[in-house]
Amino acid sequence: LSSHLSERGEVHMVSVEGKPTTLRRAVAGATIQMRPETARRLAAGDTPKGEVLATARLAGIMAAKRTPELIPLCHGVALTHVAVELSIDEAAAAVHITATAEAMDRTGVEMEAMVAVSAAGLTLYDMLKGIDRAMVLGSVRLLEKSGGRSGHFRREE
Amino acid sequence: LSSHLSERGEVHMVSVEGKPTTLRRAVAGATIQMRPETARRLAAGDTPKGEVLATARLAGIMAAKRTPELIPLCHGVALTHVAVELSIDEAAAAVHITATAEAMDRTGVEMEAMVAVSAAGLTLYDMLKGIDRAMVLGSVRLLEKSGGRSGHFRREE
Amino acid sequence: LSSHLSERGEVHMVSVEGKPTTLRRAVAGATIQMRPETARRLAAGDTPKGEVLATARLAGIMAAKRTPELIPLCHGVALTHVAVELSIDEAAAAVHITATAEAMDRTGVEMEAMVAVSAAGLTLYDMLKGIDRAMVLGSVRLLEKSGGRSGHFRREE
Amino acid sequence: LSSHLSERGEVHMVSVEGKPTTLRRAVAGATIQMRPETARRLAAGDTPKGEVLATARLAGIMAAKRTPELIPLCHGVALTHVAVELSIDEAAAAVHITATAEAMDRTGVEMEAMVAVSAAGLTLYDMLKGIDRAMVLGSVRLLEKSGGRSGHFRREE
Amino acid sequence: LSSHLSERGEVHMVSVEGKPTTLRRAVAGATIQMRPETARRLAAGDTPKGEVLATARLAGIMAAKRTPELIPLCHGVALTHVAVELSIDEAAAAVHITATAEAMDRTGVEMEAMVAVSAAGLTLYDMLKGIDRAMVLGSVRLLEKSGGRSGHFRREE
Amino acid sequence: LSSHLSERGEVHMVSVEGKPTTLRRAVAGATIQMRPETARRLAAGDTPKGEVLATARLAGIMAAKRTPELIPLCHGVALTHVAVELSIDEAAAAVHITATAEAMDRTGVEMEAMVAVSAAGLTLYDMLKGIDRAMVLGSVRLLEKSGGRSGHFRREE
Repeated sequence: LSSHLSERGEVHMVSVEGKPTTLRRAVAGATIQMRPETARRLAAGDTPKGEVLATARLAGIMAAKRTPELIPLCHGVALTHVAVELSIDEAAAAVHITATAEAMDRTGVEMEAMVAVSAAGLTLYDMLKGIDRAMVLGSVRLLEKSGGRSGHFRREE
Repeated sequence: LSSHLSERGEVHMVSVEGKPTTLRRAVAGATIQMRPETARRLAAGDTPKGEVLATARLAGIMAAKRTPELIPLCHGVALTHVAVELSIDEAAAAVHITATAEAMDRTGVEMEAMVAVSAAGLTLYDMLKGIDRAMVLGSVRLLEKSGGRSGHFRREE
Repeated sequence: LSSHLSERGEVHMVSVEGKPTTLRRAVAGATIQMRPETARRLAAGDTPKGEVLATARLAGIMAAKRTPELIPLCHGVALTHVAVELSIDEAAAAVHITATAEAMDRTGVEMEAMVAVSAAGLTLYDMLKGIDRAMVLGSVRLLEKSGGRSGHFRREE
Repeated sequence: LSSHLSERGEVHMVSVEGKPTTLRRAVAGATIQMRPETARRLAAGDTPKGEVLATARLAGIMAAKRTPELIPLCHGVALTHVAVELSIDEAAAAVHITATAEAMDRTGVEMEAMVAVSAAGLTLYDMLKGIDRAMVLGSVRLLEKSGGRSGHFRREE
Repeated sequence: LSSHLSERGEVHMVSVEGKPTTLRRAVAGATIQMRPETARRLAAGDTPKGEVLATARLAGIMAAKRTPELIPLCHGVALTHVAVELSIDEAAAAVHITATAEAMDRTGVEMEAMVAVSAAGLTLYDMLKGIDRAMVLGSVRLLEKSGGRSGHFRREE
Repeated sequence: LSSHLSERGEVHMVSVEGKPTTLRRAVAGATIQMRPETARRLAAGDTPKGEVLATARLAGIMAAKRTPELIPLCHGVALTHVAVELSIDEAAAAVHITATAEAMDRTGVEMEAMVAVSAAGLTLYDMLKGIDRAMVLGSVRLLEKSGGRSGHFRREE
């Protein structure tokens, strides 16, 4: 079922020492849906908007670095690059989030990118929940992945 | 726009010392979509399935306790109870996740419940990504909230 | 010499259970000196400046919450409020940092405020070191403290 | 203004995978000023003094390892060496702190050394604040740096 | 079997909000066995011994504060006091470790005391393993506990 | 006495940059003693037993990754593999714990394995203390170590 389970069916942190050290790269995406009014106010703001988006961006970057503490069986990875982008989609009453993670390592960085978009989205929720408690974070997904044995993966959307 | 912004439009951790200490409770939900085959294998497994679900559950509980480290403007809260439930919905090719958080505090615990379902879902993704990289975590949302000034909130679904 | 030392002269985390739970408040300050050119560029920027200052502010807030992990003998405190302010002083070629911390607790929050200004200053250094490696963080000091047995303290400057 | 800002003026963790892995080394310094009486008592103590200085030293070493959690855009670095030295300067009523950090990495370790002296100084403040609340931590600065593309840096003092 | 399991047999963080806030206190002990020569050298040392014991003591205190991060189902507790004592027993070629933890809380602090002696013992092992790799940490046990519904517990030894 | 002490007798994180990067491996063991009735109930359980053992196993794996935060002078190591095994020994009224840690690094991973068995044992204690407060964690010891300059070590038992 999962390589995270040993032959005895017990979780373990899988052995990666035999894998080559290559440039690993992953891109993940997510979307947070909100009321049109919330999106409008977020888009219309100036300094406050900057603060809100900067806070979510930083939360994503910082969470990516802590992925092995959050995801029990993840290996520690020395990330060489992390970026989080947020774009307000007023028409769709949503904010789209994308995160890129890179490392020179023996293991992939999908989880780092997935954690980054999730933390950025949750932080956005935290900052805006006072005006829109019903926002929904969704579409947390892997968009692209390269550098491992399994070859290049690009999600068809 | 947000109470997390000061009058100058700068982020701060809002002052809650004037709020009463009451029992705060929040329930959040999320769903992770997968290929029917993945859901079928997960449902059919016995011990491994237990390990996979137990790992996700623990990841959720442990992440809830670390919410103030992940969500930049969250207050530290001494949680008095956290529970995470996962149910395999083979028909919908999905796993539904629910988390409950409680505390006797001056501030709500929505974020703790939201972080718990997210971490549980991401951990599930991590453990199953080897067989289904295209899984999507979605519907991360607040289901219920009580104990604060804003009264009882229950999401209509 | 220090109440952090037991009668045997060994460090311990001092007992505070006999102290009353009151509103504790502390304000700390710091200043980071830079080349006039660096201060000028920081003051002239618009969006980038916002990002730089927001990042330092968040670093300060987040570090304050982790004070007991950094300062070995500090008690864990549930902060009810943290704010960090940065002001560019172009004339003095400096950025002044102030942090306020509050809690309803048995122990003071000086260290939380001191950690906040330090982390904000170090983050500013990190972001600007590419253009001015010789910046100096100084004047990290307690400005004000209230709520404990020792009465109100206000630094004379 | 800062390489920590992307072309869009947003913070990101800069890409370092193209940089060579070399021995990175940084030395930082700081000074904590106190009342002459405090310095005298600290210098006169024997076991207690040892405990106080050992605690500050360990706080500095441990904080250095957590630099990427404190400084939002810092890369994780596997430090190969950290040392923190404290010397009591009774004449100047001060304690001088020096920290050395080393790593075989793609990125410099200035921040690790800067964080180490700051945490050591703040810990000293914490332990002695009961007798001298007005102490000031200052002169937190980079003294030396080697191993990167920018060549050897030595601060002229 | 365990109150940490829900009716469905799944782990959860048990609900403690109905419990009264009282002074909770726990004392734990542990012993690290070593070669007689190692104990002799440790006992004979002066400054180095102080450093070694101070480091173990601090490691114990700091680990106690992080118990909820290490022990998955532990509640966060605001410790009001932690002390760790180490005594060299040259005759028995051992170091005895005792830790006391206290809090005003709804839940006991046994785990905090148990974690403190374990971390102190492991740190001692780390510092001395270069000269005695075969040391054994044992007798990690609860010595005393008070403040909860279950009454006073004192281990008979 | 210890290589963790500098020539001045002060703790430091020893320099390892001159050591070769090789596959480091360590195995540690521990045993938790309990009342025969506790062991019997643990062995007889089915789902709950799985949850209890899975929780201890995960606690061990996750703690191993955080070794450098717990053991003050430990270097950060990117573990390539961690596994924790628990076996119920009903005859001896005990649970035996074994942990294996591996890394491609300049420094050994004994402490990671020692921390893993300790955290797993303490978690077991936490989950079962409601029915058997007098359990004792012991025999925390290094069983095997390879990959460093000091050659292969295997404990004779």
